[in-house]
Amino acid sequence: MEKGSLLYTGKAKNVYGTNEPDVLWVEYTNQATALNGKRKEQIANKGQLNSAISDLLFKYLTSQGVTNHYLKQISTTVQLVQRVTILPIEVVVRNYAAGHFVTKYNAPSMQHLVPSVHEFYFKDDALDDPFMNDEQIIALAIATQTELKLMRQQADMVNILLSNLFKEIGITLVDFKLEFGYTTEHQLILADELSPDNMRLIDDVTGNSLDKDVFRNNLGDVTVGYQIVLTRLQKLFTKLTEENN
Amino acid sequence: MEKGSLLYTGKAKNVYGTNEPDVLWVEYTNQATALNGKRKEQIANKGQLNSAISDLLFKYLTSQGVTNHYLKQISTTVQLVQRVTILPIEVVVRNYAAGHFVTKYNAPSMQHLVPSVHEFYFKDDALDDPFMNDEQIIALAIATQTELKLMRQQADMVNILLSNLFKEIGITLVDFKLEFGYTTEHQLILADELSPDNMRLIDDVTGNSLDKDVFRNNLGDVTVGYQIVLTRLQKLFTKLTEENN
Ligand SMILES: Nc1ncnc2c1ncn2[C@@H]1O[C@H](COP(=O)(O)OP(=O)(O)OP(=O)(O)O)[C@@H](O)[C@H]1O
Ligand SMILES: Nc1ncnc2c1ncn2[C@@H]1O[C@H](COP(=O)(O)OP(=O)(O)OP(=O)(O)O)[C@@H](O)[C@H]1O
Ligand SMILES: [Mg+2]
Ligand SMILES: [Mg+2]
Repeated sequence: MEKGSLLYTGKAKNVYGTNEPDVLWVEYTNQATALNGKRKEQIANKGQLNSAISDLLFKYLTSQGVTNHYLKQISTTVQLVQRVTILPIEVVVRNYAAGHFVTKYNAPSMQHLVPSVHEFYFKDDALDDPFMNDEQIIALAIATQTELKLMRQQADMVNILLSNLFKEIGITLVDFKLEFGYTTEHQLILADELSPDNMRLIDDVTGNSLDKDVFRNNLGDVTVGYQIVLTRLQKLFTKLTEENN
Repeated sequence: MEKGSLLYTGKAKNVYGTNEPDVLWVEYTNQATALNGKRKEQIANKGQLNSAISDLLFKYLTSQGVTNHYLKQISTTVQLVQRVTILPIEVVVRNYAAGHFVTKYNAPSMQHLVPSVHEFYFKDDALDDPFMNDEQIIALAIATQTELKLMRQQADMVNILLSNLFKEIGITLVDFKLEFGYTTEHQLILADELSPDNMRLIDDVTGNSLDKDVFRNNLGDVTVGYQIVLTRLQKLFTKLTEENN
């Protein structure tokens, strides 16, 4: 596979084309941002850690039947993925109250949300990714009712699988953000990344954040937690692979 | 009926008890507010106009089978209503894009929204009445799924009836806000007010706003439009009454 031209410089990844029209070259960078990009920092090793975690989680979801864009890791920070047309909606799933959910609605921090809450945000930087309800999204033709339903269903499947997976390694999946896109065969599948940049993870023993909240709240070196997540996932998958042989 | 003690000083109404436990004494004031109460003004005659318009609209809805809290007008600015326990949710229905809907989502102004959009806002001044989706409201136990469904249904009925009514008098009902509350028999009914303070109304001929937008946008004397709305409604109801006799 050959690296093609730069298509998109994101806040945490650079996306390139390849010699295959349907394959993208995604480079995880060390950049961390907060406050919708207003605060920016370089954090050594973050790209590698996110890439490695995303690799394991996408492969796990694939093994459990969740269709997604992931193809493979080709270097410590580069992954090949299937090119999709991203639907301009960020899907957030919340199992426990945290972050904006706590401050905007005065919800008790870490309140267990039953059933889990889905939120849709319109991916539009100029508008600051506004939160929208289903009816607004449908009326403005940003997505259809069917698309919202499909994303909810896939997000629920991801939630069950990842919540259980993280539980096995002593971590609570508090919330996460997903993106979906259309393949050339017009199938709406999970895309983007699955890393602690886009989910909240709490260590069940220490209660520590193992995710980007450490950066958002200036609590120290964010990669310490990311490394814990990666190491535990690697151990678990090694164990699972051994059990299967 | 005797006026009792002051129960609540709102931004546009003062609410008193009466000698009947289930009856409230609602006084429409001349106060107009914008920016969630940060801007305040006294506007001569506004209380009377809103009270008269609300009186006509509630009576019309009652005649069309929409159960609501309204009892009767007892002076130019005072109405008696059935006391309910207000559910802390403001229900907004939008037929056309206007106001925040335009600025937050970059929707074309006055875009026809099909189907009409419902929005729920959590009535909580300290939190600035945040916009919420159904799942958030349910997870935080602010209202149940059944309550949201009932409010949507009643809001739709109000929308159809009032949209058609205003159409008859050359006015487009752009959007409006409703509140609902529980009676002592635990029936969830329409409450609060129905006035140009809580709806957007556009004159079909001139294109002028006949509602609080005139105040919000500093476009002159807000009561000019309110008076037009009242006069046209009075004429229409006089005509309808004559036709029925
Ligand atoms: N399979 C895919 N095909 C096409 N685009 C993708 C795919 N997976 C992810 N993307 C897009 O690639 C970009 C990844 O970069 P990054 O995550 O750094 O973006 P970002 O700064 O979060 O920006 P945005 O606000 O656009 O998501 C995102 O715009 C994402 O939507
Ligand atoms: N039938 C009713 N029984 C009890 N309370 C009512 C009834 N109808 C309306 N109310 C409440 O009376 C108050 C009316 O005052 P007003 O409209 O001025 O309030 P407001 O400034 O808009 O404040 P709020 O933000 O609390 O609605 C509101 O709090 C409204 O919820
Ligand atoms: Mg991203
Ligand atoms: Mg009010």
